[in-house]
Amino acid sequence: MKNLELDLGERSYPIFIAPGILADGALWLKYIAGSQVCIVSNDTIAPLYLADLKAQLSEKNVCEVILPDGEAHKTLAVLEQVFDTLLANNHNRSTTLIALGGGVVGDMCGFAAACYQRGVQFIQIPTSLLAMVDSSVGGKTGVNHPLGKNMIGAFHQPNCVLADLNVLKTLSDREFSAGMAEVIKYGLICDAEFFGWLEQNIAGLMARDAELLSEAVYRCCENKATVVAEDEREGGRRAILNLGHTFGHAIETAEGYGNWLHGEAVAAGTALALALSVKLAWLAPDVAARGVALLEQAGLPVEPPSNMNVDQFLQLMGRDKKVVDGRLRLVLLVGLGEAVVTSEASIEIITEVLLAAGVSA
Amino acid sequence: MKNLELDLGERSYPIFIAPGILADGALWLKYIAGSQVCIVSNDTIAPLYLADLKAQLSEKNVCEVILPDGEAHKTLAVLEQVFDTLLANNHNRSTTLIALGGGVVGDMCGFAAACYQRGVQFIQIPTSLLAMVDSSVGGKTGVNHPLGKNMIGAFHQPNCVLADLNVLKTLSDREFSAGMAEVIKYGLICDAEFFGWLEQNIAGLMARDAELLSEAVYRCCENKATVVAEDEREGGRRAILNLGHTFGHAIETAEGYGNWLHGEAVAAGTALALALSVKLAWLAPDVAARGVALLEQAGLPVEPPSNMNVDQFLQLMGRDKKVVDGRLRLVLLVGLGEAVVTSEASIEIITEVLLAAGVSA
Repeated sequence: MKNLELDLGERSYPIFIAPGILADGALWLKYIAGSQVCIVSNDTIAPLYLADLKAQLSEKNVCEVILPDGEAHKTLAVLEQVFDTLLANNHNRSTTLIALGGGVVGDMCGFAAACYQRGVQFIQIPTSLLAMVDSSVGGKTGVNHPLGKNMIGAFHQPNCVLADLNVLKTLSDREFSAGMAEVIKYGLICDAEFFGWLEQNIAGLMARDAELLSEAVYRCCENKATVVAEDEREGGRRAILNLGHTFGHAIETAEGYGNWLHGEAVAAGTALALALSVKLAWLAPDVAARGVALLEQAGLPVEPPSNMNVDQFLQLMGRDKKVVDGRLRLVLLVGLGEAVVTSEASIEIITEVLLAAGVSA
Repeated sequence: MKNLELDLGERSYPIFIAPGILADGALWLKYIAGSQVCIVSNDTIAPLYLADLKAQLSEKNVCEVILPDGEAHKTLAVLEQVFDTLLANNHNRSTTLIALGGGVVGDMCGFAAACYQRGVQFIQIPTSLLAMVDSSVGGKTGVNHPLGKNMIGAFHQPNCVLADLNVLKTLSDREFSAGMAEVIKYGLICDAEFFGWLEQNIAGLMARDAELLSEAVYRCCENKATVVAEDEREGGRRAILNLGHTFGHAIETAEGYGNWLHGEAVAAGTALALALSVKLAWLAPDVAARGVALLEQAGLPVEPPSNMNVDQFLQLMGRDKKVVDGRLRLVLLVGLGEAVVTSEASIEIITEVLLAAGVSA
């Protein structure tokens, strides 16, 4: 068992990383305050793990909401199903919500917990690699809007995060690769040593070697916990976690949610951010090339979709949250493991990089 | 000009109370951080005051959302209109929302501000008496659900509150009376001296004497600020502000939002809470009678609707946020100006009080 603490004062919480943790209620039942529990999951994950989870909750008053799987359903309208279920079962302020699923379920369940009766407690049980290493940690919750990703949401920290490495065995190859995009991100933005370790072990990781995966999840959560503890509400440094995300969100929005997985869009967006860093002469070309090569070895796309044009990119990026009074703020690299948040890249230079990457004029 | 400060540490903010403040941008423009402003109002208030407000914002980049008037429209679906407008106009994290309207507009605009891009700033300009003395102060925001009032929301404090007493002139008599329900509440729960002052001045207040109204709004905001500063997120004492509200929310939900105004339902609910306090022998009957008489002098209903039965009341009250693991928590009086939050009233005794008030079995 590898444990971490995310240090946020009175909102601090533990992250437990181990195989089989889902069935170890003795470890985590104490993080449920009252008698009412509402499990939020989706129709892919529920058939696999819901029964195991409920077996641990036999002494609680449990209800469940099974959402349709996929980013396309991460909307306010679908979120209402959670509120409907909570109210129909008379859940009150002492209820605890449990997110059993990937990033979409975690973001929606967390946002429901943030808003239900103006805030109730919740627990994250991430079932995808991406959710384990990124979205389940740090308290960002929310839903998408047709005009932009994660535009409606809240900061709401869970009581604990349970990363059960066993559940990664049922993940599809495509979802596993998508999670690797965020794993590689931590190496690029803040942990050069980890990046080197990933380069050495990428074959074993892609073969889902249990020891290697455990180490990778731990290192990612450790990095994320450090960054979030410094800047919970993303006033500054936390924004480095968004490497590739402003380009990536534009891709996800343009292509329709779910057609490109979040991790795939982040991978292509990261390649663009690396190219832009090189174009500004902030990053050595060979470092950018190593980043792109590792993404490719993880089975990820490193080129933007062929049907987007420059105007579409710029317009959608302009709607991203990383805009302050008209200036586009981007995460770029100034070295391996060294990211900066900057407004210095002009529209002209971003356009050049998009064109060079094959985006049409 | 009467000013108050709501003391919440780094979330502290001023409440300005004066006639004509809407047109005094020099006073409040400094509470708008960036260049983008989004005004949220409704189709009753906008024709009266939107132009005056916009005249003060000529140097800002302003957009507006005009919602349909009324509690029936305080829903997640209508809230989406605010997000649609913000995104269509590329508003980013540095935008400031302004609520120009009564309690419904304030609650919805505040909740939109709490959720848009995980939280932006906002200003409250309450245009009803109820919003001035109660809902605009203290940071409670949210929308209704078909199964319960204010069930989806957030605590999100405004940058400032502007109470322009001139706008009360255009309020309908019915809306004015509804606001008086909350005014009288403060006397009952925490300010016996103010209650006596209200008894002496009720005729002048109902005639909307400007001096008296100014004093009343100030005293209410002062009381509310004191209570909220002690307990921002309603872990304890803040709940006394809900006198009559658990009964009242049941009435509003049963009758359909907007058929009984919130203040009307609170008045009838307060009469029930007073009767229950007497029934438990916690309150002298003559004090309860004074409370009921003052509500009646303010033109308010003091009896529950004739078409509700006891089961309906109990079921809807059980869904209220004032329930903790199955125990119904109610605000009751133990003296004039002395409220307690208690779970001691049994279902049997609540039933007796409802039957005695004419609710059918």
